[in-house]
Amino acid sequence: MSQAERVAYFNGQIVPESQVLIPFRDRSFKYGDGVFDMTRTFDRRIFKLQEHLDRFDRSLKYAGIDHGLSRQAITQISEEVVARNLPLLAEGEDYWLGQRVSRGVDLVGGDFWQSAGPNVIIECTPLPFKARAHLYRDGIDVIFPSVRRVPPECLSPNVKSHNYLNLIMGDLEVKSYNPKAWSVLLDTRGFLAEGTGSNVFLVKDGVLYTPKEHYVLAGVSRETVVELAQELKLTVVEEDLSPYDAYTADEAFITSTSFCICPVHSFNNKIVGDGNVPGPITKRLTDAYADLVDCDFVGQYLRHLG
Amino acid sequence: MSQAERVAYFNGQIVPESQVLIPFRDRSFKYGDGVFDMTRTFDRRIFKLQEHLDRFDRSLKYAGIDHGLSRQAITQISEEVVARNLPLLAEGEDYWLGQRVSRGVDLVGGDFWQSAGPNVIIECTPLPFKARAHLYRDGIDVIFPSVRRVPPECLSPNVKSHNYLNLIMGDLEVKSYNPKAWSVLLDTRGFLAEGTGSNVFLVKDGVLYTPKEHYVLAGVSRETVVELAQELKLTVVEEDLSPYDAYTADEAFITSTSFCICPVHSFNNKIVGDGNVPGPITKRLTDAYADLVDCDFVGQYLRHLG
Amino acid sequence: MSQAERVAYFNGQIVPESQVLIPFRDRSFKYGDGVFDMTRTFDRRIFKLQEHLDRFDRSLKYAGIDHGLSRQAITQISEEVVARNLPLLAEGEDYWLGQRVSRGVDLVGGDFWQSAGPNVIIECTPLPFKARAHLYRDGIDVIFPSVRRVPPECLSPNVKSHNYLNLIMGDLEVKSYNPKAWSVLLDTRGFLAEGTGSNVFLVKDGVLYTPKEHYVLAGVSRETVVELAQELKLTVVEEDLSPYDAYTADEAFITSTSFCICPVHSFNNKIVGDGNVPGPITKRLTDAYADLVDCDFVGQYLRHLG
Amino acid sequence: MSQAERVAYFNGQIVPESQVLIPFRDRSFKYGDGVFDMTRTFDRRIFKLQEHLDRFDRSLKYAGIDHGLSRQAITQISEEVVARNLPLLAEGEDYWLGQRVSRGVDLVGGDFWQSAGPNVIIECTPLPFKARAHLYRDGIDVIFPSVRRVPPECLSPNVKSHNYLNLIMGDLEVKSYNPKAWSVLLDTRGFLAEGTGSNVFLVKDGVLYTPKEHYVLAGVSRETVVELAQELKLTVVEEDLSPYDAYTADEAFITSTSFCICPVHSFNNKIVGDGNVPGPITKRLTDAYADLVDCDFVGQYLRHLG
Amino acid sequence: MSQAERVAYFNGQIVPESQVLIPFRDRSFKYGDGVFDMTRTFDRRIFKLQEHLDRFDRSLKYAGIDHGLSRQAITQISEEVVARNLPLLAEGEDYWLGQRVSRGVDLVGGDFWQSAGPNVIIECTPLPFKARAHLYRDGIDVIFPSVRRVPPECLSPNVKSHNYLNLIMGDLEVKSYNPKAWSVLLDTRGFLAEGTGSNVFLVKDGVLYTPKEHYVLAGVSRETVVELAQELKLTVVEEDLSPYDAYTADEAFITSTSFCICPVHSFNNKIVGDGNVPGPITKRLTDAYADLVDCDFVGQYLRHLG
Amino acid sequence: MSQAERVAYFNGQIVPESQVLIPFRDRSFKYGDGVFDMTRTFDRRIFKLQEHLDRFDRSLKYAGIDHGLSRQAITQISEEVVARNLPLLAEGEDYWLGQRVSRGVDLVGGDFWQSAGPNVIIECTPLPFKARAHLYRDGIDVIFPSVRRVPPECLSPNVKSHNYLNLIMGDLEVKSYNPKAWSVLLDTRGFLAEGTGSNVFLVKDGVLYTPKEHYVLAGVSRETVVELAQELKLTVVEEDLSPYDAYTADEAFITSTSFCICPVHSFNNKIVGDGNVPGPITKRLTDAYADLVDCDFVGQYLRHLG
Repeated sequence: MSQAERVAYFNGQIVPESQVLIPFRDRSFKYGDGVFDMTRTFDRRIFKLQEHLDRFDRSLKYAGIDHGLSRQAITQISEEVVARNLPLLAEGEDYWLGQRVSRGVDLVGGDFWQSAGPNVIIECTPLPFKARAHLYRDGIDVIFPSVRRVPPECLSPNVKSHNYLNLIMGDLEVKSYNPKAWSVLLDTRGFLAEGTGSNVFLVKDGVLYTPKEHYVLAGVSRETVVELAQELKLTVVEEDLSPYDAYTADEAFITSTSFCICPVHSFNNKIVGDGNVPGPITKRLTDAYADLVDCDFVGQYLRHLG
Repeated sequence: MSQAERVAYFNGQIVPESQVLIPFRDRSFKYGDGVFDMTRTFDRRIFKLQEHLDRFDRSLKYAGIDHGLSRQAITQISEEVVARNLPLLAEGEDYWLGQRVSRGVDLVGGDFWQSAGPNVIIECTPLPFKARAHLYRDGIDVIFPSVRRVPPECLSPNVKSHNYLNLIMGDLEVKSYNPKAWSVLLDTRGFLAEGTGSNVFLVKDGVLYTPKEHYVLAGVSRETVVELAQELKLTVVEEDLSPYDAYTADEAFITSTSFCICPVHSFNNKIVGDGNVPGPITKRLTDAYADLVDCDFVGQYLRHLG
Repeated sequence: MSQAERVAYFNGQIVPESQVLIPFRDRSFKYGDGVFDMTRTFDRRIFKLQEHLDRFDRSLKYAGIDHGLSRQAITQISEEVVARNLPLLAEGEDYWLGQRVSRGVDLVGGDFWQSAGPNVIIECTPLPFKARAHLYRDGIDVIFPSVRRVPPECLSPNVKSHNYLNLIMGDLEVKSYNPKAWSVLLDTRGFLAEGTGSNVFLVKDGVLYTPKEHYVLAGVSRETVVELAQELKLTVVEEDLSPYDAYTADEAFITSTSFCICPVHSFNNKIVGDGNVPGPITKRLTDAYADLVDCDFVGQYLRHLG
Repeated sequence: MSQAERVAYFNGQIVPESQVLIPFRDRSFKYGDGVFDMTRTFDRRIFKLQEHLDRFDRSLKYAGIDHGLSRQAITQISEEVVARNLPLLAEGEDYWLGQRVSRGVDLVGGDFWQSAGPNVIIECTPLPFKARAHLYRDGIDVIFPSVRRVPPECLSPNVKSHNYLNLIMGDLEVKSYNPKAWSVLLDTRGFLAEGTGSNVFLVKDGVLYTPKEHYVLAGVSRETVVELAQELKLTVVEEDLSPYDAYTADEAFITSTSFCICPVHSFNNKIVGDGNVPGPITKRLTDAYADLVDCDFVGQYLRHLG
Repeated sequence: MSQAERVAYFNGQIVPESQVLIPFRDRSFKYGDGVFDMTRTFDRRIFKLQEHLDRFDRSLKYAGIDHGLSRQAITQISEEVVARNLPLLAEGEDYWLGQRVSRGVDLVGGDFWQSAGPNVIIECTPLPFKARAHLYRDGIDVIFPSVRRVPPECLSPNVKSHNYLNLIMGDLEVKSYNPKAWSVLLDTRGFLAEGTGSNVFLVKDGVLYTPKEHYVLAGVSRETVVELAQELKLTVVEEDLSPYDAYTADEAFITSTSFCICPVHSFNNKIVGDGNVPGPITKRLTDAYADLVDCDFVGQYLRHLG
Repeated sequence: MSQAERVAYFNGQIVPESQVLIPFRDRSFKYGDGVFDMTRTFDRRIFKLQEHLDRFDRSLKYAGIDHGLSRQAITQISEEVVARNLPLLAEGEDYWLGQRVSRGVDLVGGDFWQSAGPNVIIECTPLPFKARAHLYRDGIDVIFPSVRRVPPECLSPNVKSHNYLNLIMGDLEVKSYNPKAWSVLLDTRGFLAEGTGSNVFLVKDGVLYTPKEHYVLAGVSRETVVELAQELKLTVVEEDLSPYDAYTADEAFITSTSFCICPVHSFNNKIVGDGNVPGPITKRLTDAYADLVDCDFVGQYLRHLG
């Protein structure tokens, strides 16, 4: 019998998504007290699941949360959740695949920090091809909001936690100026940090530049680009990058699990390079990325254009 | 027929708490993308509900979230939730009363920032008298963790949001040194900021000192203490306070909705004053607080001692 | 015989403005190495000239520039320049009156810092009533740009110097989002600093708040508002103000020599108060300001509306 | 007929310098709202003009100023200005060659940021050989002033703008202690930044160190030294450098368009190395520089002694 | 029999100073791991000993050092040390009186932080009237060094500890420019902090300004000036003060135990006010100070002029 | 005749240690105004004395102190002090060897900064094998205190001075939580700096990481590890390291003159790697270190276990 609703793993069982319901005293609902990780499929194949789970483990260690599952178990469940949901995927679509764990439900009458143990969810959701297709055609208009990225002395940006309000406030700020714009927050020193779940690269005189890992979540897609660049004999420099560097770059692009690589058209309304996207090095990296994942992800996005 | 389970308001209805279940794609579960406020009852009477709702409104404005309820409606619901749950309260107990609202459930396939509209919860929970009773007898041992409070240029500490991981990491750090210790985070300049939902006061030469509002959530209990101090002709100074100020204070205490006032016994294991708690000014303020709320809250806590 | 062109003082003489021409090696053209001050007339009467010249003196001392004129001389010249130009003023118009002095023309072949002595200009220009009239009707939409105000450890914001590029870059940034918007730069800690030649005030619960002088140029109009507030028995607090404070203010307004007082409609597109401008306290201060200067400056602006 | 006065390009024409006169409402006179670049001749040959024009373009892009000339045109004009002025040059002299552009003259009655279009100047001036000759004989006494360099979050130090007051205040401060001293400003973290139009290098154990580009204007002479060092198989490290690094360096030197390379004798009156200038590696680089430009620039300076 | 050598208290005994010898493994010799306080006599009477001992106690608490003496004992010893040494004092001289305690001698073979217990010294030394007399005649030339004062997040400036190297490096820096200059270090934000054992006051429009206690050691002389100012109906404001504030002050002075009040002649070679010292308010405070201590300390200094 | 007491060099003579007594007015006792360096013996052979003396020279230059001895003399004295004391060393023990110099004794009646010239001490002391032996068995429990390391803009961490109170306060803080814990202070940006006389290394995916020299004293042992790593073909990266990096490292260890290499068991009570010490790379480096110094220093420590 055909399945009418996506399923997800929830604390030991795979159930219809509508049954994955969180008690309101869960600490992740109340405090964002949880961590997650997120990969995607390419033509329905999961990409770099182990690399994502490695990072998930580091986030869990930092936060002091233990989901109690072996690596083997979480791998197998992740694969099963995708497999069970593939029949629901439309032609040419792909999934985000996420693992999420909260510290659990607050104990009533207990101390602030005590909980009844973690809530664990493994789930997938179709990628937003339609909503973002125009970005591959036009390039992304990036705006630096006035709000700064939380510094590592307060909360490590390397942890993929459920505390996203800083990034959300930055994104809402720039969308109030231009609903199509995407934010890249500056760090507390005024250098480029990151967008919501995304990394930024600049290209200048044939060299790739991207912010240091200290101030950003080092995305798996970012790491993939670094590896592809090395194969293409392109130099990649991790360095503090200023708005000046962005304004005077030859090319720029954003990486994220969902985007892979998407070109930037402008920073704060200053056109990058000659304004044509993608620039030649962005194009080479995009092609190499598509080869690696054996999926024309740009075409996949562009096919969803009105 | 007697009610066996607490009830809560959830998106238009008052239902048993076990039915207040949040879809896992709710942005507050995934991102802490929500705000809340929290007051308490004294002998079952709600304390300063309007002041809390004023702050709630400011948090909502900052976050750009609209719960769609009038002040009158949210007041009436809050009162009804408490009233409906009073029969479940044991003798000598009181309630925390909370209003929580998330930005809502992420739209699948939509843009990052789009949601299906807010989830609104109004709920109450018994205060943790037993878990904290010893703190009124012994005073709180405060430790300054190494992690610093998120600065206002990144996320306003004046907003009571669902992003608490910074405070939680600080608290877990100090509890790993001493499970009974409470954290007060320092701000990024090294001055005292705040604990998890709590404010700190120092007393020196008969004057009260507390950190400026810029770096902390200005608690309603903190404000109440300021008002009581003025009635008692005590000077209150809002100022940057250093660990030196804490170590050399004559007395110190913590305020929060649940604590009202609770004395501090030590900072980083340096005994405050002569180590006897509460100190004389803390005692006067505590008595005045109890008078104001017409409830011996200290006795209420101490009665729960082993 | 009627004068066809405005005149200005230039190094000892009053000449037609078109003859006030600066050698291109003047250090203020090359380096912004000069200071100035700027007042205005109300119904053709000069406002607080001595207060402006006091500040001018402080700027000169800081920069180590000496224009060689006595206070009496500079006062008399300023008055004469205005008087000579009044016939050119259209009905209902007023003048900006400025004193500017550069360190002078670089010595060719000399050391970097040596010059041939100061260039001194005293001039006036009609106020931009038409360009700004809508701001009194609609309120100003203020945006905080991502670029931060230069901190006092680098160059004192209290000096009215010819180095404005930091402020200009902030203003161009926000005008690229919305051509009608005005910038208020945040300082390097993320608190409100100032706009281009303007100060910002917030009103909250009947109290006026404005940033401390450490991080802003303390405008004479700002000072005038403080004095008027005291006469109106309004409390004025100089304090660090965050975007949260701006978003949650009841009213807000900008002061500057040209604006006097002009209401703010929004900060970062968050409407201030109920969105009606001016708010009641802004209105009272505006009226008091008009009384003080004996000029309905708001009406003066509004009469220039399309 | 012999030309009695240097000529310069000014908005489309080459005219005697005395006719290059700027209206006093030009935004670069009033606000330093302009950018420039500056190269020099060696034995009357222009050095790395294209590299300087590349940087000029980046400064223009950052500032949002457009001079409207093609690269070919600006090159040709620059060359012509030098050629026309060569006859005026004394034996053994050379020229600075500068391109300067302001945003233009403020529109009277318009908005703050509107101007009547750019003023463009291309000019040359004899290098100050006499004033600086002793520095090649004695080495430069560098002092770190108390004023800090403007940080990149406020105004990019990579832009060669007309806002030099921060650097000027630092230089005047140290010259008040010792008229022969030169300033190198520290950045806001206390690391070495740059002097007025100059970069600093340290030599330690045979390795060259110079501050990172983030906090300084990356001079073309600095870049030339880096290239020469690579040819000489010397390692060059761009790194944060502290006063300790300066005090304990074996050698140090300053680079600038006019200096090329000039040895440092002391930092804050602590003698560098054994006090003999130039040190051996400075000497090797100086010689290589002279070879590259085919001009004994040190001899050129020293010939102007006494 | 007349005493030929000053005596001092050393760990329980009063002995000739030449017998107060510290083992070289004492932690204060090796690490500056000690605290002290210092008062003076006026016409041989000890000034505010209890206030100094109060501060001494706070320093000891911060450092975690316990000298084991009662307040009564330390008072009595201090008085006896002065009394025993008075016969050695020349006509018109006075004493500094200091209490010093180190954590003690490192245990050989023990852990880093363990010691054999405190070394306690109480001693007096003639004030340097001759070396400083010219400062009362000419005023102090203050220079802000490039080195910044250690911030409170690293070591509280409120503690009078034996770690003075930061202040010493600042003082040596300015004395290398001008041997007669005195340093006032700026804090890490660039505001005025303090000199070596001294505080700074500015006078502007009849109001006294001095840096906040957060960034400086709040001297007893500073506190005395605050009290005298209040008696003289002068307003005193504790506030962040910038170099601009110093340059544009009407008057300025330094306070310290030895100086009491000594006028400032210049900051960074910019003359304060009209250059005549002391200014009128400085003079009134100086006279009031002399009245309070019943000693013409200015005359006392000036009598030592060559 | 057998020597009963260790001897030390003191201002020109080698004397019994009990005769190395410092006048209490010595500036290093009063202000920590001195510098030192410290090496050790391995099986009674002095390790890298010249490298330590090189650093000693840099510290002296920074502090502006001159001990007046040639390198040859200080080397010879150092060797002689060790040689003279070797007979007192128990079987299997080794010495710390230190050179210390203070600026000297304050001149009574002179200016603050004047002294009677340096006091020079060269001495040795047995290493604390017994007190620290358990650390090699169990690994070190490192805690990051709340107090931050003094930044280089205030006092260079590269100077081995007698101002250790910042480090001492950090160490006492963590020992108040756990007497066996060792501190590693964070710098003012929240990155790992150093412990008291020790450096920290992390190992991640086979690569070694250690904080940059800007924020720490670059230990000779640290440098030795870098050299050994290169011989073992291990990559070493000097980089800003966050608590996240520490928590998620595979291995970690501390280096110091006394420790050489000692494994870290936990950071802030989060176990490093699997908790077994030493980790494989730490073990390889330890073995290589032992080979280099031809001394099984780990065995040497472990033999002192209870």
